[in-house]
Amino acid sequence: MNTKRNRVIILAKRPNGIPKEEDFRLIETDIKECKEGMVLVKTLYLSVDPYMRGRMSGIKTYISPYELEKPITGGVVGEVIESKSSDFRVGDFVVGNLNWSDFNTVDSRELRKVDPDIAPISTALGILGMPGLTAYFGLLDIGKPVQGETVVISGAAGAVGTVAGQIAKIKGCRVIGIAGSDKKTDYLVKELGFDAAVNYKKISDIKKEIKNNCPNGVDIYFDNVGGEISDAVMPLLNYKARIILCGQISQYNMDKPDIGPRVQTYLLIKSAMMKGFIVMDYADRYEEGIKQLAQWLSEKKLKYIESIVNGLENAPKAFIGLFKGENLGKQLVKVS
Amino acid sequence: MNTKRNRVIILAKRPNGIPKEEDFRLIETDIKECKEGMVLVKTLYLSVDPYMRGRMSGIKTYISPYELEKPITGGVVGEVIESKSSDFRVGDFVVGNLNWSDFNTVDSRELRKVDPDIAPISTALGILGMPGLTAYFGLLDIGKPVQGETVVISGAAGAVGTVAGQIAKIKGCRVIGIAGSDKKTDYLVKELGFDAAVNYKKISDIKKEIKNNCPNGVDIYFDNVGGEISDAVMPLLNYKARIILCGQISQYNMDKPDIGPRVQTYLLIKSAMMKGFIVMDYADRYEEGIKQLAQWLSEKKLKYIESIVNGLENAPKAFIGLFKGENLGKQLVKVS
Repeated sequence: MNTKRNRVIILAKRPNGIPKEEDFRLIETDIKECKEGMVLVKTLYLSVDPYMRGRMSGIKTYISPYELEKPITGGVVGEVIESKSSDFRVGDFVVGNLNWSDFNTVDSRELRKVDPDIAPISTALGILGMPGLTAYFGLLDIGKPVQGETVVISGAAGAVGTVAGQIAKIKGCRVIGIAGSDKKTDYLVKELGFDAAVNYKKISDIKKEIKNNCPNGVDIYFDNVGGEISDAVMPLLNYKARIILCGQISQYNMDKPDIGPRVQTYLLIKSAMMKGFIVMDYADRYEEGIKQLAQWLSEKKLKYIESIVNGLENAPKAFIGLFKGENLGKQLVKVS
Repeated sequence: MNTKRNRVIILAKRPNGIPKEEDFRLIETDIKECKEGMVLVKTLYLSVDPYMRGRMSGIKTYISPYELEKPITGGVVGEVIESKSSDFRVGDFVVGNLNWSDFNTVDSRELRKVDPDIAPISTALGILGMPGLTAYFGLLDIGKPVQGETVVISGAAGAVGTVAGQIAKIKGCRVIGIAGSDKKTDYLVKELGFDAAVNYKKISDIKKEIKNNCPNGVDIYFDNVGGEISDAVMPLLNYKARIILCGQISQYNMDKPDIGPRVQTYLLIKSAMMKGFIVMDYADRYEEGIKQLAQWLSEKKLKYIESIVNGLENAPKAFIGLFKGENLGKQLVKVS
């Protein structure tokens, strides 16, 4: 493990539309020296997430953009292989926002310990990590589901959608998922217990299909996708409906927001609410969220699924796959 | 006053686009007999409000549509001229949702007493009525203004906008109004104490003009108008901004919502919230609202302005004028 070779993926070009592999480049560098207060972490898994597309555009949103010729950073689970911090020992599993690289030498304060006894460590990037917390806070804090209500989820088979739908089931709601393949819709209904799922790529009239599956209208719409799928949901909203804007993956590869039917009138006539959020809005409540998610997991009330690609060099491909709907559940890259 | 002649305005045609005078018709009927539990009310003022356009379309929203060949109903302030109810005496001033007619014979439970000692009785249709309550609950309950925040108001010179802006000033906010004439913008700044006002009809780049007036971005957007004015505000939102959807007057004369830039991405990247409402959502808190508004009025912290047209026969014209931006403050029709 004392190799000095460290492969790092950097941003070579700002993508135009859907990212391409040539927008990234794998370079080799030395491993940075582990100084006082730091730890050296070997990457085991890294996470690819749709929100990262926004950081590649060079426009500041809630998070600073990636810099050209600098490493891509994201969720990483790894193992401590050298420690000059009293907080971590060699062999500890950790999670943090680190470079897409074989190794990271970082200040110990940037890491959080992962307990391998609760669940496989990869879940720290999925159901017990940012995607799980995103589903948890979005659905419960913004959506405030009430037993018997109808919840529609777009991007339902992704890392966030699968968790949001299962939490809605725990809360006694009727849950309808929208996803892009029969494999995904089958999984949602047969494995995760969704009441129905719609393969939007196979039907001509999304609105009609959703309407048929929501005889009592839509109380909560957990939206990861936006665009035409959301256009179809808007006319089905019930009085005081809540729309949780978690992601807008249909828009991420556009220079500026698409044009579509204005939503304001739909919200106005139904006293409905639409709210955007990012998981960082709830940073002071992460502990609560992880504790609850871990409990549901241990009680078998939550299931999770991971799509795993092998090799650091394949991280760009795995990332690009998110926009082609390739992943079922959480998309991870196994690095070591 | 014991005439049997009662003029009533009915809906003759469902309007296509901006309503025309021929969509209405004045008919004459007998005054209905005042039976046990009822009162006979002589109309003094009637209210014309933008939301009524929706009821003319024949589509059920939060409120049932007007029926063809049946009276238009809306806010009316009147005087009791005959009473068979222990709740009201002859001479009492009352407010209710009544026919656009010289007289209304109604169940006493449909009326609320108006105290002429608090303020002129016409204010029961404006600042101490539905428009005032709409501004009060929308701004305070949805907007939750914090001292020092920036509040932008579209349709700022109307019955609701003038009140919302003044309440925002009471709460210590910077307030920018958007309106459609210099007379209106002058009034907002010079009479009501708005920090700035933009005449959107006189400028080519609304976004730039609003941006110049909001150096710290927009925390609250109180929207009565929608359409392109809202498009201009969206990119200026601050983190955790609140958009209060009170009206969408730019859309009311359309068959279906207009097409425009999708708002979801703007809301998402700012963790912002957009909520529709109607004043009836707060029916159980009207008393609180009227009490507070009346107190601010008596303390001279709130001012109001009315645009008055004379004659029941001119009610359709006054209503149509709302969509041409003719009114400054609350538009009323003085009937008797």
